[in-house]
Amino acid sequence: MRFTAQTSSGGVSERLFTLGEIPGVLWTPEGATGPRPLILMGHGGGRHKKDPGVLTRAHRFVTECGFAVAAADVPNHGDRPEQVEYQRIATEIQARVQAGDDPAPLIAGFQSLVARQTVPEWQAVLDAVQALPHVGPAPVGYWGVSLGCGLGVPFVAAEPRVRAAVLGLGGAHASAEAAARITVPVEFLLQWDDERVPRSQALALFDALASPEKTLHANPGGHGELPPFELDSTIRFFTRHLR
Amino acid sequence: MRFTAQTSSGGVSERLFTLGEIPGVLWTPEGATGPRPLILMGHGGGRHKKDPGVLTRAHRFVTECGFAVAAADVPNHGDRPEQVEYQRIATEIQARVQAGDDPAPLIAGFQSLVARQTVPEWQAVLDAVQALPHVGPAPVGYWGVSLGCGLGVPFVAAEPRVRAAVLGLGGAHASAEAAARITVPVEFLLQWDDERVPRSQALALFDALASPEKTLHANPGGHGELPPFELDSTIRFFTRHLR
Repeated sequence: MRFTAQTSSGGVSERLFTLGEIPGVLWTPEGATGPRPLILMGHGGGRHKKDPGVLTRAHRFVTECGFAVAAADVPNHGDRPEQVEYQRIATEIQARVQAGDDPAPLIAGFQSLVARQTVPEWQAVLDAVQALPHVGPAPVGYWGVSLGCGLGVPFVAAEPRVRAAVLGLGGAHASAEAAARITVPVEFLLQWDDERVPRSQALALFDALASPEKTLHANPGGHGELPPFELDSTIRFFTRHLR
Repeated sequence: MRFTAQTSSGGVSERLFTLGEIPGVLWTPEGATGPRPLILMGHGGGRHKKDPGVLTRAHRFVTECGFAVAAADVPNHGDRPEQVEYQRIATEIQARVQAGDDPAPLIAGFQSLVARQTVPEWQAVLDAVQALPHVGPAPVGYWGVSLGCGLGVPFVAAEPRVRAAVLGLGGAHASAEAAARITVPVEFLLQWDDERVPRSQALALFDALASPEKTLHANPGGHGELPPFELDSTIRFFTRHLR
C-alpha cells in the first residue's frame, strides 16, 4: 500500500493510495489514533471513488461517527485504465436505457463479471487499511447502491468482517443468489419510481436477503433521487451495528 | 367534553374523558402550558385506547417531543357498548383468519363501515382537545396501523389539520381510494411476513398515497412484530414535520 497524497478539510484527513493496481482513498478523523469501525463504500456505475455522493457520506461517517471510510475505483472507472470488454458492455447498457429497453439482464451479467474481480480487490483493501494502527481490526460496514449494490452483495456475502450493510437501487437479476448468503443486518434503499431497476426486481432482492434483521426504505423518485434524510438513517444504522 | 379521571406518571399527565358517547384519553407533559403539536392515535382491532402499544408510544411522544397525544375507543371496542353488527363481522374475520382464508375483502368492508362513524368522531375529539389551552391549535399528526390504518387513511384524507401520518399494516382493498386524496408526508410501516395483509395489498396502498413525501419501511416478521427501532424513526418523523 503506497500513499500518494494527503489533504485535510473540516476535521477529515484524506489520503489517496494505490494497492497494486487499485487506486483508493482513505478518510479518517484528523489526528485519529487507535482502532475504529471502517466503512467500505462502493461507487456507482460511471462514477469513481471521490464521487460527490461518496464524499458527502464519507465526511459525515468520519465527523459524526468517528469511523474510517475507504473507497476504491472499480475496474474501468476513475483512475483505472479502460478495459475494452467492460467499456463495450457499459456502452451497450447506456444504449438500452436510452432506447427504453430493459437493461436489467445485461446489467446483471456485467456486475457478476466485475464482481469476480472486485470481491478479492476489496478484501485486499480491507487487509491493508485495517493494518494501519488508526483503523485496526474493528467491525466493518459496507455502503453501496446501484453498481455499488451489484458489486456489494457478493462482497458482503463473501466477507465475514462486514457486520452491517447499506445496499439498494439494485435488483434480484444480478444478486439474488449471493443475497441468500447474507445474514448481517441490511438497510435496503429502493426508489419507488426507479427507471433503471424494475420495482419487482428490487423487492425480490430485498426478499432474497437471508438477514434476520433487514429493513427496506422505499421513497418516491427516480434512480438518482435518494432523499437526503436517508443518510441520517444510514448513520444511525451503522452506529447501532458497528459501535 | 367531560374529564372523568386524572393520573400522572413519569412526567406524563393522563386524563380520561368522554365526549358525547366517545370514551377518550389525553396525555400531555406534566405542568404543560401553551399550544403544542397533537398526535391522534388509532388503536388496533380488538384493542382499545389504552392498549400497551398505544401507551408506550404516547409516553415517548410526550416525554421526548413535548407533544400532546389523544386516543379514543373505536366503536365496539374498549369502554364502548357492543354493536351487534360490528361484533358479527369481527367474529367472522377471526374465523376466516383461523381457517387460513384471506380476510382482506371482509376487513375492507368492515373498516369502511366503521370509518363512516370514526372520521366525524375523531374530528370532534380534535375540536375538543385543541380547545384546551395546553394543547391549542398547533399542527396535528396521526399514528395508526392495522385497524388504525384502515380508519386512519379516510381520517387523514378528510382532515386538513393533520400534517403528517404514520400508517401501515393495512392494504389497498380497504383504503386505496381515500389514500389517493392524502398529500401530507407519510411514514408507512409494512411487515414483510404479515399473515393478515397480503404483501401486494400493502405495497399497493403505499403506492396509492398521493403524498409527494412518503417513505415505506418494511421489516421481516408478522403482523404484530413491528421492530422497536421503528418507534425511534416515528419520533424523528413527527419531530421533523410537526415542530
